Amino acid sequence: MKKNNKNWKEKLHEVIYEADTPAGKLFDVVLLIAIIASIVLVMLESVPSIGKEHGELLNISEWIITILFTIEYIVRIISIKKPSKYIFSFYGVIDLLSTLPKYLAIFFTGTHSLVALRALRLLRVFRILKLARFIGESNNFMKALRASKAKIAVFLFFVLILCVILGTVMYLIEGGENGFTSIPRSVYWAIVTLTTVGYGDIAPHTPLGQFVASIIMILGYGIIAVPTGIVSSEMVKVNDIDLNTQSCPSCSYEGHNDSAVFCNQCGGKLHE
Amino acid sequence: MKKNNKNWKEKLHEVIYEADTPAGKLFDVVLLIAIIASIVLVMLESVPSIGKEHGELLNISEWIITILFTIEYIVRIISIKKPSKYIFSFYGVIDLLSTLPKYLAIFFTGTHSLVALRALRLLRVFRILKLARFIGESNNFMKALRASKAKIAVFLFFVLILCVILGTVMYLIEGGENGFTSIPRSVYWAIVTLTTVGYGDIAPHTPLGQFVASIIMILGYGIIAVPTGIVSSEMVKVNDIDLNTQSCPSCSYEGHNDSAVFCNQCGGKLHE
Amino acid sequence: MKKNNKNWKEKLHEVIYEADTPAGKLFDVVLLIAIIASIVLVMLESVPSIGKEHGELLNISEWIITILFTIEYIVRIISIKKPSKYIFSFYGVIDLLSTLPKYLAIFFTGTHSLVALRALRLLRVFRILKLARFIGESNNFMKALRASKAKIAVFLFFVLILCVILGTVMYLIEGGENGFTSIPRSVYWAIVTLTTVGYGDIAPHTPLGQFVASIIMILGYGIIAVPTGIVSSEMVKVNDIDLNTQSCPSCSYEGHNDSAVFCNQCGGKLHE
Amino acid sequence: MKKNNKNWKEKLHEVIYEADTPAGKLFDVVLLIAIIASIVLVMLESVPSIGKEHGELLNISEWIITILFTIEYIVRIISIKKPSKYIFSFYGVIDLLSTLPKYLAIFFTGTHSLVALRALRLLRVFRILKLARFIGESNNFMKALRASKAKIAVFLFFVLILCVILGTVMYLIEGGENGFTSIPRSVYWAIVTLTTVGYGDIAPHTPLGQFVASIIMILGYGIIAVPTGIVSSEMVKVNDIDLNTQSCPSCSYEGHNDSAVFCNQCGGKLHE
Repeated sequence: MKKNNKNWKEKLHEVIYEADTPAGKLFDVVLLIAIIASIVLVMLESVPSIGKEHGELLNISEWIITILFTIEYIVRIISIKKPSKYIFSFYGVIDLLSTLPKYLAIFFTGTHSLVALRALRLLRVFRILKLARFIGESNNFMKALRASKAKIAVFLFFVLILCVILGTVMYLIEGGENGFTSIPRSVYWAIVTLTTVGYGDIAPHTPLGQFVASIIMILGYGIIAVPTGIVSSEMVKVNDIDLNTQSCPSCSYEGHNDSAVFCNQCGGKLHE
Repeated sequence: MKKNNKNWKEKLHEVIYEADTPAGKLFDVVLLIAIIASIVLVMLESVPSIGKEHGELLNISEWIITILFTIEYIVRIISIKKPSKYIFSFYGVIDLLSTLPKYLAIFFTGTHSLVALRALRLLRVFRILKLARFIGESNNFMKALRASKAKIAVFLFFVLILCVILGTVMYLIEGGENGFTSIPRSVYWAIVTLTTVGYGDIAPHTPLGQFVASIIMILGYGIIAVPTGIVSSEMVKVNDIDLNTQSCPSCSYEGHNDSAVFCNQCGGKLHE
Repeated sequence: MKKNNKNWKEKLHEVIYEADTPAGKLFDVVLLIAIIASIVLVMLESVPSIGKEHGELLNISEWIITILFTIEYIVRIISIKKPSKYIFSFYGVIDLLSTLPKYLAIFFTGTHSLVALRALRLLRVFRILKLARFIGESNNFMKALRASKAKIAVFLFFVLILCVILGTVMYLIEGGENGFTSIPRSVYWAIVTLTTVGYGDIAPHTPLGQFVASIIMILGYGIIAVPTGIVSSEMVKVNDIDLNTQSCPSCSYEGHNDSAVFCNQCGGKLHE
Repeated sequence: MKKNNKNWKEKLHEVIYEADTPAGKLFDVVLLIAIIASIVLVMLESVPSIGKEHGELLNISEWIITILFTIEYIVRIISIKKPSKYIFSFYGVIDLLSTLPKYLAIFFTGTHSLVALRALRLLRVFRILKLARFIGESNNFMKALRASKAKIAVFLFFVLILCVILGTVMYLIEGGENGFTSIPRSVYWAIVTLTTVGYGDIAPHTPLGQFVASIIMILGYGIIAVPTGIVSSEMVKVNDIDLNTQSCPSCSYEGHNDSAVFCNQCGGKLHE
């Protein structure tokens, strides 16, 4: 009964914003394919040999996807009750930015500023953020990242200070003739080394420099344990709290497992 | 008594599928040696100097091992009650694939398609998966890997999105003259950098590029703490449940907390 | 009333040493900007092209910042009750070292010892340690680092011993013709490899050397789990104690378990 | 009284095997310096320029340290009740190996086998294992390493299987012309990549190869979380057990803190 009363706007909303109907699931799958295809297109276009040979094909495919995304954007605005809420949300802005560049490219064909044009075209790569919808807000990993944000930030800040000091020391030891031509470059090298990336484009040549480099590497190898430990303990704490949400109606004890039916302290039944 | 009644099929089954009899242990050791020897053979064959000089010896050894594996495969089918269950299991398929390539190579000697032939020969390397039997299903590490699969997948998906965006940004900053000739190549570089591998075959040369690269490295160094934290807390949770070895005398349920006095499933008192 | 009684010294102290008044916050922001600007200045000065072109501008900016830091140093001494306590504290020494180099540079202009002069100038980079004030003593990360110091040190000591032995082995295997010209250099290479930095400036060329290198890499990849595990468990322990915020009504002791009913110090009952 | 009764053997034993007397502490410090000096000597000797110039000085220093170690070895044997127990212990063997090479070198001066001679001389580097005494058996890190040994071994075994398969796949994709000349070499490359070392001496050149390499890197970056998680949870479990060693004499409850004086369940006093 209730379902029949729904007008087309409500039906559209269900298809687009929810994933629990067959139509909603189909919409999600089509959207997912379109996003991935669109990213692959941007990538292929940038490969010189492919870009030149199949330019026309890529252009047509781009237009098809852009039109699809435009339709999606318009339908999302129509089917929601408060369009402004969607338009200015994170997803609304991303959706708009996903379609605009291709349209703007029409007006800028005559431009001489190649960098601006290229930047404009590459904006399309941010369509990948549309995938964020599929990872979902409620995801454990995102929660962990958000909970540990401040701690990781302090850690990275600490790493940066260390790199500035160590980079300067290496600049003094090695000097310009060994590739350490300036402090910013030496700091860049210190970051490359401390994070254990190690390109090898700049490498110490003097024995003292190699000694200091060894210390930096061992430091970088050792201190990674600290943020990991903090995040782990944070996660354990979150888990502990997750387990203890229901309290026994008889004795108010709260340390129950998720699957508990009876209180493990007084044996009374739990309301779940 | 019971043991004497066993027919040869049951005895074979005991030797091959179980490891608690002396014969079963011996079988396992022989199998282990044969697998490792077979992998070493495939490897040595691929070394140009060894492959040419000792080609005949390697070929004979290969045939010996192939025949051994064929016998093992046939015996496994004979000794089990439902052969189809084994044949289509993970191990059954691997065992078949371990013997086939050598036999197929007889028929394909005249083929001109070298790549197909080489691929066929290299299929033998998958024999290493036969070792999976020795790691065992019940292993803690495998359990951890399976439990964390979804979380690690989301993390890696997140890393990929990050790499696509950062790779595109670097493509714009550095451009083709510094090695960032296309977006796929730049994304490849971003992955090399974020995962702290750092080959150095492509490296940023502009100051701005080195600045962005530093950010990518520090990000890669910092966010590794997040999946580690999630898996750690997951493991702690699993361990907590593992510790509760007591089972309820009324309903035999085993998932109790350490401090539980009553069964949380049936409300019966626990003997501790 | 109380506030009006404060003399100018107390007011200054509040502004400089505390951050909970608007003036105190403003002071902190200005200080933060001055520190970062000063670090950027030292860095830019070291870039040959910028150093030559804008030398005069950089010099003037340096003097402005040096004078600002001098004022800060003097005001900090004046506004504190026991100046000696500040002067010989970690921050006092850092603050002094932040201003001295520029003044000393006046007297050493005629010096021929370029390295000493350069070292003197670069001392200014340690101003970045003034940022330590903003990370704060009470920070979780610093606590974790301090708590795990001993454990990480033992781990790094263990890594060093491993690197000395493995480096010597590689020196024997590869020899001088492949870049392993001496034991210190081989140990340096072992550290580069075990910490997964991997510059590639020195790399094994013999099959045996590559085999040993593989073992070192896999070791390095595996043992990183150990310090991480120790720090994680340490943090979980700290968190557990952190969670017990209830204090005993009899003796005010606060280190209770979650499940505690009686105080574990005086035996008095706890109100929960 | 008791102390005076001690004969010189007991006194020696106290000095050498225990560290709680002033003489014992002094002995430890001298030993530590001698070990480190001896390692530095071996290292310096291997540097061509230093080895030639200061050869005589290094030789004399070596003899002094060797004689010191010989005396230590003899005294250790004399002062212990059961010399055979020490001689065949880990430390006994290491102590013997630390002194022998120098003596053996006298007899082998005429040998033409340079590699054997070099290997013999380098054996002295294992003196660094004498440092193991200072890390101590009871150390937390060593305990963690021992507890996680099996798990890390399975993990590394899993990594090896992965590297063999991925290396073979890359051998097929890239082929000899891009540096992947044989399967062992490709497996070596896969290990270099998966462990995030990344020398860059071998790097994929084909787009498909770079794609597979990206997958390997991301895998390597992701699965490191698994052993870390296992070790962390293991450590947390060990810590939990560490806390629960004393049980209340009144109610036998065992979940007490280290600092607990009274039982937190019944309020009874704990025997500590």
